[in-house]
Amino acid sequence: MPRRYNKKLQIKLSDLRKLFCRRDLVEEILSGGKDPVIYEVYQISQPPSEGVFSAATTVLYPGKIGDEYYFTKGHFHLKEPRGEVYIGLAGRGLLLLQDRNRKIDKLSLNKGEVAFIPPNYAHRAVNIGDEKMVFLSIYPSDAGHDYEIIEREGFSKIVVGRKGKVALVDNPK
Amino acid sequence: MPRRYNKKLQIKLSDLRKLFCRRDLVEEILSGGKDPVIYEVYQISQPPSEGVFSAATTVLYPGKIGDEYYFTKGHFHLKEPRGEVYIGLAGRGLLLLQDRNRKIDKLSLNKGEVAFIPPNYAHRAVNIGDEKMVFLSIYPSDAGHDYEIIEREGFSKIVVGRKGKVALVDNPK
Repeated sequence: MPRRYNKKLQIKLSDLRKLFCRRDLVEEILSGGKDPVIYEVYQISQPPSEGVFSAATTVLYPGKIGDEYYFTKGHFHLKEPRGEVYIGLAGRGLLLLQDRNRKIDKLSLNKGEVAFIPPNYAHRAVNIGDEKMVFLSIYPSDAGHDYEIIEREGFSKIVVGRKGKVALVDNPK
Repeated sequence: MPRRYNKKLQIKLSDLRKLFCRRDLVEEILSGGKDPVIYEVYQISQPPSEGVFSAATTVLYPGKIGDEYYFTKGHFHLKEPRGEVYIGLAGRGLLLLQDRNRKIDKLSLNKGEVAFIPPNYAHRAVNIGDEKMVFLSIYPSDAGHDYEIIEREGFSKIVVGRKGKVALVDNPK
C-alpha cells in the first residue's frame, strides 16, 4: 500500500491543443515557443483489482485561452460502473459532468468540498479562480481512463469568463 | 448526489462497553452517571449500488480508558472485495488493519495523510493525540458494515499509552 505518489504526469498546453475552443490562439502561443504547464497529477497508483482504490492529487493552474478557463482533459472510465470522488483542497473550481448522451451537469469544487461522480459520467475539472486549484481524487484502481471520446467530441459545454462572470456556454465546435 | 451529510451518528462510551479492555473502568464511569461521546460520524450516504461512493467525516475525541486510547468500533465490509480510503484532516492517529486471520497491521493517519484499506481487512481508527482526530473516509456505497466479528472477538492488538509512549500490545482478552 503506497503512501506517497508513484507516478507524476505533467500536462502542457500542447497536450490539450485539440481540446481548447480557440485552437488558433493555442497555435499562436505554441509557435511563439511557449508551452505552459496546465496541470500536474501526482498519482498513488495501485494495481487494478476490484475493490482496491487509487488516488491522485491534481494541481490545475489558473489561466485562460481566449475566455475559456484552463481545464483537465476529462475522461470516462473504461470499466463501468465505476464512480469517483473529488475533494477540493485549494482554490476555486468547477467539475463538469457529462453523461453518455452529452447532457452536462456542473458541481462546485472549492476548497473543502466533496463531489461525487456517478458511474458513466465523463468528468473534467475547471479552474475558475486566480490561484492554483488543488484537488484529491479517489477512484477504483480498475476503473481505467477513456480519454478518446472527449478528445474526439469534447464536452458539449465550455466554461468561460466574460465581463468578470463565469458562464457555462455551448461548445461552438 | 448529496453534497452535505444526510446521516449523523453519535457513539458514546456505553456503545463501546464490550470493546474496551478495562470493562471494569467503563462500568465505573457509566455507573457514576457519565457517558462521554467517543466519536461522531457525519455520513454522506448514497443508496447501495456498484461503482457508487459514500463518504463520512468522523470526529474522534481524545481520551483513554485506563491506558487504552479512544477508538472507533471497527468493521469488516459485508460485501467483498470492497476497500476504503481514509484521509486525515486533523489531529494525530493510527489506523489498525486486521485481516481474516487476525493478523494486525497499522498505518499512521495524521492530518494530510491518505491511507488505503485493502478489501477483506477490518479497520479501526485510534486517536493517539491530545486533540480531536478528524478524518474523511470514502467507501463504496454497497460495501456495508459488519461490526459483529469485531464486537465478538475484538482486534488482536490494542493501542495503549504507557509512560508517554504509544504502543501496540496484544489484546489481553
